[in-house]
Amino acid sequence: MTTKTVLFNNTVLRDGHQSMAATRMTTAQMLEPAPILDEMGFAGLETWGGATIDSCLRFLNENPFDRLRTLKKIAPKTPQLMLLRGQNIVQYTSFPDDVVEAFVRCTCANGQDILRIFDALNDLRNLATSIKATKKYGKHARGELCYTISPVHTVENFVKLGVELEKMGCDSLGIKDMSGILQPQIAYKLVKELKSKIGIPITLHTHDTAGLGASSYLAAIDAGVDCVEVSIVPFANGTSQPDTVRMLALLEGHPRCPKFDTGKLAQLRDYFTGVYKQLEKFTSPANERVDSDILIFQVPGGMLSNFRTQLKEQGVADKFNEVVREIPIVREALGWIPLVTPTSQIVGTQAMMNVKFGRWKMICQPAQDIALGKYGLTPGPINPEVLAQVIKQSGKKPVTERPADLLPPALETYRKQAVEKGLPADDETAVLFAMFPQQMQDLYKAKTAPPAAAGPVTLQSPAPAPAAARTVTATSGRKLAVTINGKRHEVTVENLEG
Amino acid sequence: MTTKTVLFNNTVLRDGHQSMAATRMTTAQMLEPAPILDEMGFAGLETWGGATIDSCLRFLNENPFDRLRTLKKIAPKTPQLMLLRGQNIVQYTSFPDDVVEAFVRCTCANGQDILRIFDALNDLRNLATSIKATKKYGKHARGELCYTISPVHTVENFVKLGVELEKMGCDSLGIKDMSGILQPQIAYKLVKELKSKIGIPITLHTHDTAGLGASSYLAAIDAGVDCVEVSIVPFANGTSQPDTVRMLALLEGHPRCPKFDTGKLAQLRDYFTGVYKQLEKFTSPANERVDSDILIFQVPGGMLSNFRTQLKEQGVADKFNEVVREIPIVREALGWIPLVTPTSQIVGTQAMMNVKFGRWKMICQPAQDIALGKYGLTPGPINPEVLAQVIKQSGKKPVTERPADLLPPALETYRKQAVEKGLPADDETAVLFAMFPQQMQDLYKAKTAPPAAAGPVTLQSPAPAPAAARTVTATSGRKLAVTINGKRHEVTVENLEG
Repeated sequence: MTTKTVLFNNTVLRDGHQSMAATRMTTAQMLEPAPILDEMGFAGLETWGGATIDSCLRFLNENPFDRLRTLKKIAPKTPQLMLLRGQNIVQYTSFPDDVVEAFVRCTCANGQDILRIFDALNDLRNLATSIKATKKYGKHARGELCYTISPVHTVENFVKLGVELEKMGCDSLGIKDMSGILQPQIAYKLVKELKSKIGIPITLHTHDTAGLGASSYLAAIDAGVDCVEVSIVPFANGTSQPDTVRMLALLEGHPRCPKFDTGKLAQLRDYFTGVYKQLEKFTSPANERVDSDILIFQVPGGMLSNFRTQLKEQGVADKFNEVVREIPIVREALGWIPLVTPTSQIVGTQAMMNVKFGRWKMICQPAQDIALGKYGLTPGPINPEVLAQVIKQSGKKPVTERPADLLPPALETYRKQAVEKGLPADDETAVLFAMFPQQMQDLYKAKTAPPAAAGPVTLQSPAPAPAAARTVTATSGRKLAVTINGKRHEVTVENLEG
Repeated sequence: MTTKTVLFNNTVLRDGHQSMAATRMTTAQMLEPAPILDEMGFAGLETWGGATIDSCLRFLNENPFDRLRTLKKIAPKTPQLMLLRGQNIVQYTSFPDDVVEAFVRCTCANGQDILRIFDALNDLRNLATSIKATKKYGKHARGELCYTISPVHTVENFVKLGVELEKMGCDSLGIKDMSGILQPQIAYKLVKELKSKIGIPITLHTHDTAGLGASSYLAAIDAGVDCVEVSIVPFANGTSQPDTVRMLALLEGHPRCPKFDTGKLAQLRDYFTGVYKQLEKFTSPANERVDSDILIFQVPGGMLSNFRTQLKEQGVADKFNEVVREIPIVREALGWIPLVTPTSQIVGTQAMMNVKFGRWKMICQPAQDIALGKYGLTPGPINPEVLAQVIKQSGKKPVTERPADLLPPALETYRKQAVEKGLPADDETAVLFAMFPQQMQDLYKAKTAPPAAAGPVTLQSPAPAPAAARTVTATSGRKLAVTINGKRHEVTVENLEG
């Protein structure tokens, strides 16, 4: 057994808030903690990619590349990581190779250090362009295996994929357990096997959704994993990564236990507690708690964080359990695809439609595309009856080519379209416009408007709790029964205006 | 390493709801799940003792011995456990030996199988009478070590205590990690050492408060622990014991993994979810989440479940962090006592007084008694300045005798007092009257009144939530849309004052 100190990456600035607060942390809220995080000895800081780019544009009125530049400037020492969805970049469908390469070029040019590259189907052809581009621009490519459980996902098969990723030029390997379903015994075997077959370092990324994450980290550390990814409470544990202080406590006395400044960790905890309160509209106790039901349904943390809201919007909030139970059925029919963006959203939508309209009565477009091979090769075969129905419904035939091989170059088209809408002609704008045309136009228009994002909170005095939550003792005033969202409260109202 | 299947005790009917819902589960709410739990192959069901007896009398209008008899009747197969505070029985101060013996006699006579016996100071003299009585009445005595962290609490010292408990006649040993601060490396060493020195079986009891519990169970299982204690969600994880389904997932593939009916576990989860909703006045998201701050303050889960409420009642809710930070200071001054009932309450109260009035300006009676040795021998020395002040303030001198040696027999006095208040003359009444005189009188008076406890819920259709929490559709009143901190609420306002 190795006695080399295990490395920690910290995810609080990306997956921490993506998993706990619907990706709503603003760049302003990162300004104070980022330099502290940069000084602590983390092997890497995950700061970008995943849903953050979408969230910057859609909700926060921020240019994502500005965030990247800002964070690189204020936290220059520690390598920064981003999560890239391979050929999907940070969207839900495949893009042509020239757009993918341009995105990677801009990302690397702005100083991103480590690109975590995955494909939802583990179809390695969908990682090739991103890996090649990352290497070309002198950065670190971390190829990711999306971990899932199914009859076709064995340790042996995952090890084969790991060997392939090393051959493809990856500088390191990531095991991406986005649903938090990797069990300690499997984690041990998987890491042990991979370590015996490949020479590049291995990082394990998990979520504590089902209460397995921290224990699986310990097992992987015993098996020789090089690095694990942790976050900071309250953006930690539950649907997020295990908390740093907690992992240190779990490892205390272990020969591989790293050292971190506990005073600084407490300072960060206090700061992020303030941010968490500011983001309370997007947080939920359900994300904070351990829920082993995930072991049956295998829904990733980030998805759970949004799924309840989506069902509410669709008017089927009461069908939550039914829809969640439909997920494995949809998954099997679609070739046992792992659940990770975009497949988690697609399977979730189809499960909802199966419940709402009857099983396979209606098949959503992206689910049809998965069945037709347009996302790549599925791990298992598509259910023949579902495929037959898709072929009939769509009038299309299944494909076996690499999806991007069917797409002509398009960067210049996107650039031209952007310019026509009054946007600049540079690469950054073109690649973001390719993925988020409407949001990029909105952002550009909003540039002259005052910023809407929440301001930074200070470490010295955490922001006060919102007025609504403050405990008051009403001495006079009118007594009322108020029903809010169906829940009755007895309330005393005082007129404060005299 | 042993490959013997590890045993699970289930705590949901005692510590599960004590830690998650302020001990408010009623006997009626246990009627349906108890027979199911009884069929599942748990090595034991914890059903009684701890705070349940107090809660039955104070809040639930139940005779605690009726609960014991009922549960023994409907779940006769699986050994049942209770938690006994040694010479304190289930109260906060020492009782004479004859009262302790009478309590144990009644408990054993009503079919209690395994008595978990501990002392808050680990002063084994305070366990002697209970252990002897348990053996005398033919039942299983499980001596408990209260685990804590301090300069005077080493693995070596705990092992010595374990050896002593075996010598005192205990049938098994419990490691009681009431604060959930036992770390995996220590758990491994402690169990390994104990297994090499004693022959009786060892059970580990922890809480997942700091997110260490499940991992420490795994380490203890690797070290050969015989049994661990688990609960059922939502009365599991967080400040309670790790969930059964979760522990099974963590152990899958492990040579010591036990087998349980997952269908029945899902059924129990659904049932207890209904009960948890009924008890929502007593539950809190803070109990459900993992909080590593506990590692600094070492406050047990059951205490956290009540502490916030107590501070609110004392008007110092805003001083929560300050009071919690004072706890280790009080603890050190009082000889590094572990924090467990009653010392957790005493230290908590004193910490609150230190914050409210200035450090050691006022010393509460029980803290004075600890300093004077009236609870037994403290693990470390009392701070000399605090002791001097206590001596001055109280006019009393420290004692070194076993506390109960200073107490004359009192059972007949309590019996006489009970009879004078119109209560029956039997032993059960006398021992409960000794601890809860007022509550016993109230219970007896209430016997003719209609029962106030919640009825049983059915597995098929969970009972509705209590009125205060019930979702209602207001049919009258004014409908408004109110935006609070940017969040829109649909509100109905009714005037209750006419």
